This record gives sequence, structure tokens and C-alpha cells, in this order.
Amino acid sequence: MSNKTGIAIVGSTGYGGVELIRLLASHPQVEVTSVISSSSAGTPITDGYPHLAGIREELLDDVEPAKIKEKADIVFLATPAGVASKLAPQYLEAGLKVIDLSGDYRLKSPQLYEQWYGKPAAGKAYLEQAVFGLAEIYGDNVRGASFVSNPGCYPTATLLGLVPAVKAGWIDPASIIIDAKSGVSGAGRGASLGTHYSELNENFKAYKVNKHQHIPEIEMVLGDAAGVPVVTTFTTHLVPMTRGIMSTMYATIQGDRSLSDFIGLYKQFYEGRSFVRIRPEGQWPATKEVWGSNYCDIGFAVDERTNRVTIVSVIDNLVKGAAGQAIQNMNVMMGWDETLGLQFVPAYP
Amino acid sequence: MSNKTGIAIVGSTGYGGVELIRLLASHPQVEVTSVISSSSAGTPITDGYPHLAGIREELLDDVEPAKIKEKADIVFLATPAGVASKLAPQYLEAGLKVIDLSGDYRLKSPQLYEQWYGKPAAGKAYLEQAVFGLAEIYGDNVRGASFVSNPGCYPTATLLGLVPAVKAGWIDPASIIIDAKSGVSGAGRGASLGTHYSELNENFKAYKVNKHQHIPEIEMVLGDAAGVPVVTTFTTHLVPMTRGIMSTMYATIQGDRSLSDFIGLYKQFYEGRSFVRIRPEGQWPATKEVWGSNYCDIGFAVDERTNRVTIVSVIDNLVKGAAGQAIQNMNVMMGWDETLGLQFVPAYP
Amino acid sequence: MSNKTGIAIVGSTGYGGVELIRLLASHPQVEVTSVISSSSAGTPITDGYPHLAGIREELLDDVEPAKIKEKADIVFLATPAGVASKLAPQYLEAGLKVIDLSGDYRLKSPQLYEQWYGKPAAGKAYLEQAVFGLAEIYGDNVRGASFVSNPGCYPTATLLGLVPAVKAGWIDPASIIIDAKSGVSGAGRGASLGTHYSELNENFKAYKVNKHQHIPEIEMVLGDAAGVPVVTTFTTHLVPMTRGIMSTMYATIQGDRSLSDFIGLYKQFYEGRSFVRIRPEGQWPATKEVWGSNYCDIGFAVDERTNRVTIVSVIDNLVKGAAGQAIQNMNVMMGWDETLGLQFVPAYP
Amino acid sequence: MSNKTGIAIVGSTGYGGVELIRLLASHPQVEVTSVISSSSAGTPITDGYPHLAGIREELLDDVEPAKIKEKADIVFLATPAGVASKLAPQYLEAGLKVIDLSGDYRLKSPQLYEQWYGKPAAGKAYLEQAVFGLAEIYGDNVRGASFVSNPGCYPTATLLGLVPAVKAGWIDPASIIIDAKSGVSGAGRGASLGTHYSELNENFKAYKVNKHQHIPEIEMVLGDAAGVPVVTTFTTHLVPMTRGIMSTMYATIQGDRSLSDFIGLYKQFYEGRSFVRIRPEGQWPATKEVWGSNYCDIGFAVDERTNRVTIVSVIDNLVKGAAGQAIQNMNVMMGWDETLGLQFVPAYP
Repeated sequence: MSNKTGIAIVGSTGYGGVELIRLLASHPQVEVTSVISSSSAGTPITDGYPHLAGIREELLDDVEPAKIKEKADIVFLATPAGVASKLAPQYLEAGLKVIDLSGDYRLKSPQLYEQWYGKPAAGKAYLEQAVFGLAEIYGDNVRGASFVSNPGCYPTATLLGLVPAVKAGWIDPASIIIDAKSGVSGAGRGASLGTHYSELNENFKAYKVNKHQHIPEIEMVLGDAAGVPVVTTFTTHLVPMTRGIMSTMYATIQGDRSLSDFIGLYKQFYEGRSFVRIRPEGQWPATKEVWGSNYCDIGFAVDERTNRVTIVSVIDNLVKGAAGQAIQNMNVMMGWDETLGLQFVPAYP
Repeated sequence: MSNKTGIAIVGSTGYGGVELIRLLASHPQVEVTSVISSSSAGTPITDGYPHLAGIREELLDDVEPAKIKEKADIVFLATPAGVASKLAPQYLEAGLKVIDLSGDYRLKSPQLYEQWYGKPAAGKAYLEQAVFGLAEIYGDNVRGASFVSNPGCYPTATLLGLVPAVKAGWIDPASIIIDAKSGVSGAGRGASLGTHYSELNENFKAYKVNKHQHIPEIEMVLGDAAGVPVVTTFTTHLVPMTRGIMSTMYATIQGDRSLSDFIGLYKQFYEGRSFVRIRPEGQWPATKEVWGSNYCDIGFAVDERTNRVTIVSVIDNLVKGAAGQAIQNMNVMMGWDETLGLQFVPAYP
Repeated sequence: MSNKTGIAIVGSTGYGGVELIRLLASHPQVEVTSVISSSSAGTPITDGYPHLAGIREELLDDVEPAKIKEKADIVFLATPAGVASKLAPQYLEAGLKVIDLSGDYRLKSPQLYEQWYGKPAAGKAYLEQAVFGLAEIYGDNVRGASFVSNPGCYPTATLLGLVPAVKAGWIDPASIIIDAKSGVSGAGRGASLGTHYSELNENFKAYKVNKHQHIPEIEMVLGDAAGVPVVTTFTTHLVPMTRGIMSTMYATIQGDRSLSDFIGLYKQFYEGRSFVRIRPEGQWPATKEVWGSNYCDIGFAVDERTNRVTIVSVIDNLVKGAAGQAIQNMNVMMGWDETLGLQFVPAYP
Repeated sequence: MSNKTGIAIVGSTGYGGVELIRLLASHPQVEVTSVISSSSAGTPITDGYPHLAGIREELLDDVEPAKIKEKADIVFLATPAGVASKLAPQYLEAGLKVIDLSGDYRLKSPQLYEQWYGKPAAGKAYLEQAVFGLAEIYGDNVRGASFVSNPGCYPTATLLGLVPAVKAGWIDPASIIIDAKSGVSGAGRGASLGTHYSELNENFKAYKVNKHQHIPEIEMVLGDAAGVPVVTTFTTHLVPMTRGIMSTMYATIQGDRSLSDFIGLYKQFYEGRSFVRIRPEGQWPATKEVWGSNYCDIGFAVDERTNRVTIVSVIDNLVKGAAGQAIQNMNVMMGWDETLGLQFVPAYP
């Protein structure tokens, strides 16, 4: 009856899934027709998420492709690593379009996946089919695609901050150091000592130094932009807050580039892209300034003493770093305006 | 050109004003045509709120009624106490509809206002004209009104939690005790020692015990519901979080009423009102479950040992407790569906 | 060689145990000679608590009474409910003095214990032997005792705030309503969805309304103070912070009592007790003002309109609500000054 | 009567001053005989700090040298930049020993001070007399000194993390990049929009990129260690927490150095220094693990792919970064054990 495109969300009981529900609720062209959870199928989603009372009261569906195909045209996979590699092929074969929010189809090299994720890689054919959905960089590939792999949260903030300068040859790719910080929701909803309130509140800590599985994803795209392999230093930290990622990036400048040159370069690079906002001189973005929205805000400092540029990039890890970017990819895949249903003003304060 | 109703927001640089901007950005029937600040007129709002970059770039307007009337049909006053009492009459006389978010027109008694606010009261004629805009209770008065006084944040959570039981005679009005807790954004954007980060983080404190200016507002409406004057005990606390109010309320039950009786009574009372959600047995709402939305969630416990009911009511103080409720009032005033532009899913987590 | 009294801590890997280690490190009369954990025996405590590096490097001991007796004279039991009821008798029989921080020996009625804790009660003889160690109220019993049951965190804040007025007959015991709020560390170190960072941060929630297992403990002592059985309304809430409890208490005043009467009564009642501080008129304590210390701060408001008194009492739940009070009890048991090793200035901010 | 050394604290109503009061309360060799505030002299310190009730009830003194000399032998200056440069000479001339916690005497070059602080520098003679009190590096100079300038909070965490490697020539000084993060208490107690609770909670932001006044202090000491001038890239961020600094540092390794080489080098360098703890392989310190204590914890990662070392150093900014280190300096000046009165176990959680 409805002319809207039907959407299924697999992994609805995780933070990524529940954020898709929030954001898609006001999308003008689609309707979420199936919320799916293999672990909680048959129970109402409001059992685990009372905030959805009166909004989504129906029972959770199971993951079977045929059943999903009856209700939906597009599937979002908001599942942990290792699950999408099994489910995505079935959904594609059933004729569904698939957007995978996990890491399973981001790395084109199965060897790299197995090395960094410690799990069997997805099949080669599907790896090749999956388009890396960083729409501001690879939008042409996303357009019309039926299988998109949504970038990781850290790579999104980091790559949007680095690619224009790397592509322009303005920074030395070998000099790149990335100091990244994330709110705790990036760790998902699974309870553990590492995400226990009393351990994280009033605490700031480093983790997985040089070992985060987002490193090869970042280096894959930077290498593509630089035209040569790139190796980076990448540190991740947990911030005592729920949402938000900041990537503070350092690199040695090549050529004679001022602060306003950098600002100009990025403004030009992202011209017409609504979700990247370049900050004026002397202003650096804070994570709260993009909270709840699909923006990525970027600011710069150029230090003549050291000939280095400092690039500060922020996103909401659950929106631009996950569910929002996935919807943006859907919009581009479908040929819709990429901002459709995503024009949220950041919630401030 | 646009067929949308023009909106002016006075006090745009406060948290209430900036939340109106956020919420109204996606309202289908209106357009914010003037954002106004007497203190910052002539400068861009993005100076103080960089999160609005690319969203609202124009300069702030001044408060003059004639200028506003050229651009707008409805004015929201998100100004501190003592300001609306001066501005509202001018705007009304200029033919604008006015929704006042401050406390200036809530109390019908000038004496009470002066006693609790320590400022000169608004003029008697306008006090009488102003409709108290708790739409779930006084919706009939709001419909078609041109001047609405938006309830306070604490009274909203508290009254939605108490009025049905008081009206039904199920609780003894003389026994009501209200223990309220608020996030810090309720104190506004003005910096002070009392809202200094290091003083509030990892801290929980009581303030204005028995002295909060929202007390007479609560008692005015409870008295109206009870048909007799009501005096309450009301305590306010600051919670180390930004948004959210919880009102935990205690009263002695009159008659033989079970937990499911209370749930039934409230469900019936709020039937058809989209923004009040009644929780099932054994479930109490948490403030995060309404974060960023216009919902008021209410849960109950009945203690047979003491013959008391405990009522727990939560809202987002900046939405249902301020900007969202003001927009709801606008919708009702204009004869639109009261949920128009307000169907936000709470942002969780 | 050392003349110090040897101390064993059972349950060292919980928050209560690790706080005992922190506080006892500077106690002039004792030395912690054994840190014990049944689950982690044989591993260093720094594996789970790197903050103890360089402070306590030795391996964790096991729970055997004979081994403990070789090293220690006093045992602190910082174990979950249901464990102390099994261990305490063995340690007492081995000739050790025992201070139990769990709920196993607080309620003198096995029936009440089984009803509220849902576990088998401790043996009757030991229940009778265990002294309820609220030293400001029952100090005479604690002196010279060899088995003390340390009060719960909520009861400590609540009872210190209510007993003087109840004993004096200044408030109606049947009117008492207790609205309590706690930091998250009270839930211990076990990871669960209910203590997951992203669920609690920027959130305030009620839990176990009328059902918390501390209710019978509070009513036992209030009944003792009143001379008649007392039934209360008691609500618990989780505050997004790590440490701190506030109990906001309401009661109807009996007789003609002013605010300064209440302040005078409490100052007199607690004269000579270093850890209870009574606040002057118009000042209510905040939890941060006792953070890290053994203080209980109490403030009052008297409302002539309702004839009710509001009593606000705060403690650090891990110090005065657990480890600090246990050490205070040890001091009193041993005939030492009750403040020995406990004169910490609150950590502010 | 007391044989203890008398201590005066100037600037007692700031966070540094109040932390000195907390820490010195349990120092066995000294007694705080005068707490001083030019702005609040004559009023009790408990007016602004109720947590000191029952601990320090006396009125605040004024800043006059003669009066102070009557009561004290040592003065701690916990005043804002620009104040100590005026007061310290008077106190030294009055025969008092002085420990200055501000930035006024850290930089030996008046030009650098004026450039980075934007205020007139202190007199040259006193600048030369002031010993830079990073006791782990310059302890020999501190011993017996009568005028010590206490290092800044960021420099303390940063320099303890870098000096051993720079001195050993294991890292290229020109490659050093410092990404520093601080809790909000480092900004002091003065209320401002930048430290307003609702602006900082659930927010992470960069500030003063390449412009922080601690940069020349860091470079002064690094240059001293390297034997050549050093220029660094230094970024500061605000973390939504009260206490704690983490400095994440990056540098290119010179020579063939493994992770265990670095750990060994630092363990040797800090041998016998109680307050620096070196973490084992694969463990990075978190700020909470030093909360409330005088520890500086340091961890390492070596990346063979990039030939860079990542060094993570944490302190409590109010203790090792201010008051605790000042007391440590006092201990060294007086020939006492440097840990006297500072053996606090970190408060965890």
C-alpha cells in the first residue's frame, strides 16, 4: 500500500541497529518493515529498549532471507564482525540490496582481515563486489551499487580529515600520526569489565595501541589516495562519554602551505557535500557540536616552527560513524539526495 | 513564497532558544524566519554555537516588534524571568501570537509571582489572557489561543504524574511529597560556580529545598485538579548530567487501589495523547529513555505495607520541559496535529 | 617483628576489598598481611588492579581459616551476600575477630533475611552474636565485640539522618519517606547491562522501588529507636557518578520544632562523634563534599506550610558506607580512637 | 609547642590551594599554620568549601609577609600567573622558603615568558634563583634550595615520559609529537562558558592547539636533555572528567630498540624514585589508576612498521601535576624522604 521502500534491520538490538531505527523513523522515502534479531526473535524490542514504547511495538523477526525478502528491499546488517560474512551472500542472492555496517567487507584483502580480525574472511567474490561506502570519497562507486560496506567509525573521522591533503600531496604520507579518541558506545552493548560504568567514569585510557583492527582500513584508503602504500601510527583512547569520536592527526607539510591554504583546499574538496563542515581559522571542532547528527567537522592548525599540520576531525560515532553514514549510502545507492532523512541539527547541549 | 508560517525566536542564544531552532528545523508547517537576541544582535549565532554552522548562518535580529511582525506570525519567548513580562504585551499588540517559555505568565496571582520570583509581576490583563499550556490537561484552552504560557520543566514532569490521581480522588492531596532531580542544562547557559564543571561532575546535590519558584505553579494546578488548595513538599536536586528530569512522587492512597488500577487510570486519562507513555508493572522510566524527545514516561509502585503510591515521571527538560512543549502548544493553538514536527525517537544511548 | 595487628581481607578483588586496602595502607596500628580472593588466589592483585602496582605486589591468598590465622588477627569479609554466612563461623572458631561488610548478619530475623535476600540465612547463634556496627548509635555494643556486622550503605546514610529525630519523638515514624540516590560503585564490580557505561552515563533511573533489601535493615533500627515497629517508603535511584549516596528524607514533625531546634538536637546527639557533621541553616550537603572520606554530612529544612522536615544526608558509599565504617568498627572493637587511620580530608574537587 | 614546620598556603581558595590543604593534613613533619587568600581574607574557608567543615574552621589570613613569617617557615604559592612574580621576592626577603606552583618562575627566559603568558616577567635575579622542581630530573638542584618553581601539570606528565629516551638518544628530538588530554580541574575554579557543565559534559574538545603556555617549559627541559634546542608539536584537549592528565607521545626511534629495551631504560632511569611506575608490556596506564595520588605511570608501545615509539604517561593533575609535586619538592628541599606524607593509594574506583 505504502509507496515507500521497505527496510529490514538485522542486529536491531545493538546500538547500531537501534540508531538505524531512530534515524529511519523520519526518512521520507523508506519504511522499516522488519526489525530482526537472531538472539531475541519473537520478543518485542521494547523489552530491551523501553524508549521505543509506542514507536515500535512489534515482535522481532528472525534472519531468514526469504521472510525478509517478503517485507523489504534493502537490508542493513548491524551485526558483529564474523556474522555479515555469512548473512550478506544469502541476502544478495535473495535479491536484496545490502548495506553492511560491520568490518567484514571493508578490507579487500582476506589475509589482512584474518590478521587483524582473527576470523575467517568473507568470500573473495563478495569482497570484490562490496563497495567501500565512504560516500564523500567513493560516491561514484556507491551510486547504483547493490552491496555497500559501511566504513568503520574511526576510519570515517580519520579519512575525511586526511584524504584531501594526501591526495593533493600536501602532506608526507609516511609522517602521519593519528591520535583517536572515542566515546564508549563504540564498544557496543555487550557488558564487560572494560565498559563497566565505575571503571570508565572519571577515567581516560588508551587501548589497543597500534593494534586496532581499523588500522588496515585507514591505510587501505590512504594508500589509494597517495598512490603508494601508507603505514601509520594509530592510537585509540576511551573518553568518559557515550557518543563522539575525535581524531587528532599530525603530518609533515610538503611544500609551502599556510593554514588558509589548507582550509581552502578542504572547502573545495568537499564542495557540495553537505555533511562535511570546515572550520574557520582558530576554531577546532568539539564532539558535542556534531552529537546526534551526520556531520563531520574538521579544523586545522599549521605550525611554522615544526612545519607540521594538525588536523582535528569529529563525528558522532553512531551516526556518521555508523547508522547515519549507512543511510547516506542508501540514499546514494538509490539515487536520492544524499541528505534525505539525515538533516538533523546536532543536539546541543 | 513559502506557505509556511513564519516563526521568530527571542532569546535564541540560550539553551531554550537553541533547542527551538533544533526542533523547528524539521517542522513541516513552519519556518524560523528570525532568530533574535538583544545581547548579540548583529552577530552570527554560529559565533556562540558552532554546531549551527551550515544550518543557520544569518545574523541575529533585534527584539523590535515591528521588525518581527514583518517576518513572523508567531513569537517564542525563550528569555529569562522578568523579560517576557515586558516584551509579550508589545508583541501581542503588534498582532503576533506569543508563546512564552519563561515563568512570567504562569502564576495567575501577581502576589505569588512577586513572592517567589522576587520581581515585579506582569500586568493583570495579560496574566489573565495567558493560557497555561499544559496541553494534556488544558488543551481545550490552548486551542485557538493567541497567548500561551509554557509550563516550567519541573511542573511538567510533576503535574503529568499527579493530576490524574488527584482529579480522580485516589490520593490525598495533603500527603503529596515531590522529590525532583534535574540535569544541569535546566540552569541555563550562564556560567557560575554552581554550574562549574568540576563542582558538579561526580557530585549530587540538593538545592532550594522548599524554596523553588516552581512550587506555586505546581500547587496552582494541583489545587485546580483537587478542587481545594494544595500545599506540597518539593525538593530539587542537581544530577551530574546535561538533560533530563525525574520527579519521584509519594502520596497516600485513598480507597482500595492496586498497581494495575493506577496504570489503568492513567492509560485512560492520557488516551489519545501521544506524548505520555504509561509503563507496565515493575518498570520505571529512566531519563535517558526520553532524551531528545517530547515524551513524558510515567511508572508506578503501590506499597500495601504503607498504603502509599510512588509515581516516577521523566522528561527531557529542554524538550517536553521547554522547547518541545512550546511547539506542541503552537500545534494545538494553530489547530494542527499536536505531534507535528515532534515525532522524534529518543536518542538512546 | 612489627607490633602492628595483622589484617586479612577476604574478597579483595571487589570494590569494598580494594577500598579497605586503600584506607588501611595508612592506618598506624595495623598491617594488611593477607589479601584474599577465592576466585583469583595465586595471582597478583595488580592483574586486576594495576593502580596497586608498587603498593601490593604479592599474590592473592586463599580463604582457609588456618592459613589466615597464621598471618592475621582480624578478618574483614568484603564478599557478596551468601558467602559470609558460610565463612564467618569458621573464622570465629579459628579465633579470629570478624567484621562482615555483607548483608548476611545484619538482620536478626532469619525469616526477614530469606524474604528480602532470597538466600538461606546464617545460623541463629552467629546472627545473635553479630553486633550491628553503626558505631554512632550502637558504639557501646561494638566496643570489645569480636564479631561485627557492618551496616549497608543506604542504611548508614539514612539511619544517621533519622535516628536522633525518631528517638526524640520529634517526627512521626509512620510518616517517614526515604528517597535515596546512589553512585554506581554500590553495584560492585560485576559487569552487567545495568552497570554498562553507555546505559548509565547521562541517565538517572529508579530501581527496586519498595523492594530493596536494605529496607528491613532500616526498619529494624528505626523500630528500635522508636520503640514500635516502623514501616517506611524507600526508593532507590542510580546517579551517573561512581561514589556517593544521598538520602533525602521526609517526615511529619511532632510538636513545635524549628529548623534550629533540629540542628541543635542533632549536634547534641552526635557530640564527640567526629564523622557526623551537621550543616548550618540553609546549607545542604552534596555528595562530593564527603568524597573519599568517612564523613556523614546532614542538613535540614523545616517547612511550616506542611509541618514536615526534610533531612538530607550524604556519605561516600565505599567509605562510610562500607570500608571506612568497617575500619571505624575495628577501631571501636579494639578500644582505639574511632578516627584512627580515617582522618581523610574529602577529595574536592 | 609543636615541633612541626609551619606552612602557609597563599591562594587557598583555588583548587591547588585546597588540594595542598588535603594532602598536608596528614604530613607527619609539617603543620599548616596559615591559609591565605587576598580576596577572601577574614572569612572562613568553609564558606566556599563546606567539605572542610570540622577540619579547617579558622578565618583566612591576608598575604602580608611579616604576618606570615610569624606563623610559618615555608610558603606555597598557589596563585594565578602574574601574582607570584610579585609576592615571591617579598617572602624570600622575609626569610621564608618559597614553593611557587604558578608558571611565573619556570621559564628562565623573560622574553619567552612574556611571549607565551602575555604578562610582565618576574625579575631576572629571582628567575635565576628559582630551581625548576621536577624532582626526578633535577632533584640535586632542589635539595637544600630555598626557592623552587613547581612544574606545570602538562609538562610533568610529558617530561617524565620523554626525558629518559631523549637523554639516552633513543628518540629523535625533532620528531616528538605530544597529544595531551586533561580533566577540567586544570582550568581552576573560575566560572566561564568554557568550563560550564553543560558545555563540557558528554563533550571532548581540543583547545589552544600549538599555543599552550606549557610548550616553552616542555621545550626548555627537552632541550636541556637533548643538548640541542628542541621544538615540539603539542596539542591539548579537555576530557569530561575532573582530574587526570594523559600525555600520549610519539617519536621516531634512533637505533635498534625494542619495547623491552624501552621498559628497561625507564626502569633504570627511575630506579629508587617511588612516584614513577613503569608498566609491563602490553599495559597502558589509565588516569584513574593514579587518581588522588602522586604517581606518574608510564607505558610504551613500539611499532616496527613505522619505527616509532608511543609513550603514554598519566598523572593526577592536582597531585603530581600541582600540590603533590610541590610537597615532594618541599620534602627534597628539607632533606626529608621525598615520599613523606605522600604515600596515598590511588582512589579506585
